[in-house]
Amino acid sequence: MQAPKQDIIHRLQIAKGHLDKVLRMVEADEYCIDIVHQSMAVQAALKKIDEIVLENHLKTCVADSIRKGNRDEAIKEVMEVFKKK
Amino acid sequence: MQAPKQDIIHRLQIAKGHLDKVLRMVEADEYCIDIVHQSMAVQAALKKIDEIVLENHLKTCVADSIRKGNRDEAIKEVMEVFKKK
Amino acid sequence: MQAPKQDIIHRLQIAKGHLDKVLRMVEADEYCIDIVHQSMAVQAALKKIDEIVLENHLKTCVADSIRKGNRDEAIKEVMEVFKKK
Amino acid sequence: MQAPKQDIIHRLQIAKGHLDKVLRMVEADEYCIDIVHQSMAVQAALKKIDEIVLENHLKTCVADSIRKGNRDEAIKEVMEVFKKK
Repeated sequence: MQAPKQDIIHRLQIAKGHLDKVLRMVEADEYCIDIVHQSMAVQAALKKIDEIVLENHLKTCVADSIRKGNRDEAIKEVMEVFKKK
Repeated sequence: MQAPKQDIIHRLQIAKGHLDKVLRMVEADEYCIDIVHQSMAVQAALKKIDEIVLENHLKTCVADSIRKGNRDEAIKEVMEVFKKK
Repeated sequence: MQAPKQDIIHRLQIAKGHLDKVLRMVEADEYCIDIVHQSMAVQAALKKIDEIVLENHLKTCVADSIRKGNRDEAIKEVMEVFKKK
Repeated sequence: MQAPKQDIIHRLQIAKGHLDKVLRMVEADEYCIDIVHQSMAVQAALKKIDEIVLENHLKTCVADSIRKGNRDEAIKEVMEVFKKK
């Protein structure tokens, strides 16, 4: 994991702050629907981070593997992520 | 938000611990694919929490609204969550 | 399944037409990425149909079940759909 | 779109048959929840097809583009699919 490291760390810290807010909302007995929306916002932020990490991975590790002839293992790993999404 | 409050708080604290681990993995330049899987595990944990909150919401608030004749607003809110998922 | 039946049938027929197009694209060796986008458009159309059916279901069957005191079974079925989504 | 073409065509024809079944279920006023599950089965079948097409695309077109030095455009297209999923 190299290139956009600071951006990703910053995004993860923001996501963590939003997750803390979910916790406080549950502790304060806030409205269920508002809690779910806040939780979904954390998930959306993590999805965006996954996309940045995966794009970086394709451009670096996967591209290197393909150039070095190790195509199948690199692509298998990417497909496992795609299937889980 | 009433009934399964302690269970939800406990799950959120675990999810927060896993999110901290994502942060440490990024800081330690761990393998991209491992980071994405760890991030997806956090999202899966939050999805499970959403399900618990939503089921509780349907059984309490939505059921009450329907009995009191306020069906449409309660269902509209649930559908907004369903569409965002 | 009552109320918006004609709308749903119409949408399903359009989705079927788009699925036929995916088939013709594969047979004609069209570009992979274009095929996937066309397939995803069919899935998005089916998701929209699911939302219409589910909203109708909540307003009719689920609301009736709750008024009649059969809350849990109706909500369990809705949650199974939500979890699968 | 080359390699697993016959498999993909076969899967699309089965998905089309299942979509026809959704249509017949709606026309016959079958139970909403059963209709949604059948529709979700079609979507799951299309997702599986997308995975086969995408994996084939990564192994052929994307690998070729990377070897020829056209990395960014090929990866951009893959990421657009990933984001839409």
